[in-house]
Amino acid sequence: MSDHRMTQPDESVLTDELVRDAAALDAADPLAPLRELFVLDGGVYLDGNSLGALPAHVPARVADVVARQWGELRIHSWRESGWWDAPERIGDRIAPLVGAGPGQIVVGDSTSVNVFKAVVAGVRLSADESRTDIVVDAATFPTDGYVAESAARLTGRRIVHADPRELSAALGPATAVVLLNHVDYRSGRLHDLPALTAAVHEAGAIAVWDLCHSAGALPVDLDAHGVDLAVGCTYKYLNGGPGSPAYLYVAERHQEAFESPLPGWNSHADPFAMDHRYTPAGGAARGRVGTPDILSLLALDAALDVWEGVDMDSVRAKSLALTDFFLRCAETYAEGGLNGVDSRVSSLTPVAHEARGSQIALRCAEAPAVMDRLAGRGVVGDLRGPDVLRFGFTPLYTGFEDVRRAAAALGEVLAEVPRA
Amino acid sequence: MSDHRMTQPDESVLTDELVRDAAALDAADPLAPLRELFVLDGGVYLDGNSLGALPAHVPARVADVVARQWGELRIHSWRESGWWDAPERIGDRIAPLVGAGPGQIVVGDSTSVNVFKAVVAGVRLSADESRTDIVVDAATFPTDGYVAESAARLTGRRIVHADPRELSAALGPATAVVLLNHVDYRSGRLHDLPALTAAVHEAGAIAVWDLCHSAGALPVDLDAHGVDLAVGCTYKYLNGGPGSPAYLYVAERHQEAFESPLPGWNSHADPFAMDHRYTPAGGAARGRVGTPDILSLLALDAALDVWEGVDMDSVRAKSLALTDFFLRCAETYAEGGLNGVDSRVSSLTPVAHEARGSQIALRCAEAPAVMDRLAGRGVVGDLRGPDVLRFGFTPLYTGFEDVRRAAAALGEVLAEVPRA
Repeated sequence: MSDHRMTQPDESVLTDELVRDAAALDAADPLAPLRELFVLDGGVYLDGNSLGALPAHVPARVADVVARQWGELRIHSWRESGWWDAPERIGDRIAPLVGAGPGQIVVGDSTSVNVFKAVVAGVRLSADESRTDIVVDAATFPTDGYVAESAARLTGRRIVHADPRELSAALGPATAVVLLNHVDYRSGRLHDLPALTAAVHEAGAIAVWDLCHSAGALPVDLDAHGVDLAVGCTYKYLNGGPGSPAYLYVAERHQEAFESPLPGWNSHADPFAMDHRYTPAGGAARGRVGTPDILSLLALDAALDVWEGVDMDSVRAKSLALTDFFLRCAETYAEGGLNGVDSRVSSLTPVAHEARGSQIALRCAEAPAVMDRLAGRGVVGDLRGPDVLRFGFTPLYTGFEDVRRAAAALGEVLAEVPRA
Repeated sequence: MSDHRMTQPDESVLTDELVRDAAALDAADPLAPLRELFVLDGGVYLDGNSLGALPAHVPARVADVVARQWGELRIHSWRESGWWDAPERIGDRIAPLVGAGPGQIVVGDSTSVNVFKAVVAGVRLSADESRTDIVVDAATFPTDGYVAESAARLTGRRIVHADPRELSAALGPATAVVLLNHVDYRSGRLHDLPALTAAVHEAGAIAVWDLCHSAGALPVDLDAHGVDLAVGCTYKYLNGGPGSPAYLYVAERHQEAFESPLPGWNSHADPFAMDHRYTPAGGAARGRVGTPDILSLLALDAALDVWEGVDMDSVRAKSLALTDFFLRCAETYAEGGLNGVDSRVSSLTPVAHEARGSQIALRCAEAPAVMDRLAGRGVVGDLRGPDVLRFGFTPLYTGFEDVRRAAAALGEVLAEVPRA
């Protein structure tokens, strides 16, 4: 304990309490044993919402794919090692994590490419030429907006930006498709998927959800809420590895009418017939495009093993407990507390559980310097310029003492970095 | 030597000659030492034009990417391990193999997705609304045709099919874009890229070449021949691994006007500014889309090491020698010889060197049974239904004695499989 703290008994008492509470929360955490499945170091990794940590068994699985499946079996692996069906098979493994029945999710391509498929196909599903508008979350992760704009240009529609909290104002008989982020990548705000999907449907439009920042961190329940189309990445909370393939969900009721703007040969009903006429495959395979990227797909396949037997409600409960505890720790450790007049940091993430994802975004005038010094202490978060410190909480491998240590490091760093 | 052959002295003499010649050709082959760089077995692998063999050093490199770069450095690898720039950096490594100067090739996405970018962007480059036609190689690998059709639908153009050998008839003031395969995937016919590109330009149109079956097997010389746009895969003659990322070439003179239909955030001039307005990056990066698929990209990066110091003219010379020798061996070993009235097999691949890629396609009524039995003997080719045996010759790791053994096995198998 430092001299500095010796002179501030109140803080010291609070710190002792946080240490005790962290230990108690970790001891009572039913997901705590899962931490052993990951490769972690002595630091605190709070950037699993950018790149998930490596599950410890993945290297051996990838080595087998490279050395045996590619090196020895070569082309025979398309059948013998299950390469050909991997996009649908792995889609079916992601399905329960996002509340989808089998046969509706296909894995492959990047999130951006899947947004393109979903928005163009969504416009086509909406069918009615008088539906001119593609409504896009005004705070969307940029790629969704760029790609939606391209889809609008190519389908002769126009883009309308809307705050998801005031979505109804943007909806009407001209709405074709609505593209929304389930959790805002910057603020960590969780949008109300059931209510917003219902509002989109009431307007007679197609709801496309981007699940990048929610899948694997909280229940999504795509089927239960009647979502039409959805996309998501697999390298954040699903730990699939850097740039691992994204996925596309097409609700079963839309599959027959789903018309991909990227009808590559892998989406053909009989791809090896090498038919010059295009006849789309049924089911999830209709969302495929070209030859699947096997090394990355099978690394993801292996990574998904950590979800076996994991219940998404427990994940959500722990996620909320982690972010609650982080806010409490930050309030104690950060100079001036949180959200006060004299505070160095204030939270952009909603306090209400129903509006919070699995991250905390703290506004801080000195964010770049602070994030840099945190990294020097082994606490890894993400900077979202110009002034946001973003901390992601991955329930499978983040513990409560990790959270406390990260907040304590934040307090120390703030004491070192002069006010801007 | 079998009794059967003892009674056929002529064949035996010819066989002895082929054995001797194969040994002499192998001894004189300047590329022969490269074979040691690959993982091969006792069989003969003639399917490198479907999936290239594993370069022996790749497993260790992939293991490092997974365990250290992902597992230990995690997000720091985007900068520290060169992940972020990998699409352009690896593009610059492919460039000399296809005769392109630096800064014009970007790696990522599948061939199909890159065909879409190229055809839509090509239509936009052609600019003139009166140019209504997208001309597509009538014998194209199917995905190019399907994707071009989608591009036509989205840009309000129409598809015109044409035999590349009679291309001029299809060209005119209405031609916007011409999409051609450099080597026909089925017959192995090599099209005349310089002359056809010139003809397309004379018509005022944009030439898009698909290099899947030529890159890594013969010189392409994109820059020298003024090609506008090109795409290719990396898992055939470039040995990048199953489903490894494809590439897109945009000639420097078109980069400023190149408008991607898939403007993902990775193609933004300042991707981490998270700007809601799209401002495209300059150079090859404009062809990027979403987060690059790092495991597959870096496996490809490693695989490209085998090309260091390899001259594409030597590759071409060996490729032609291999296919010549295979035709000679097949003529000797196959019942009834090659291309005769009584022959079991006839070649679809042009005899003329200037019209031959790096494969031989043999028409055979009993092709499925023959290919099956060849595999049983360790000779791996590819079946292209209903009646084509396709054999690819990879100059880096296929030797002349391999070729002779494959043809001998073909002769034995034909003797076992009754005529249909």
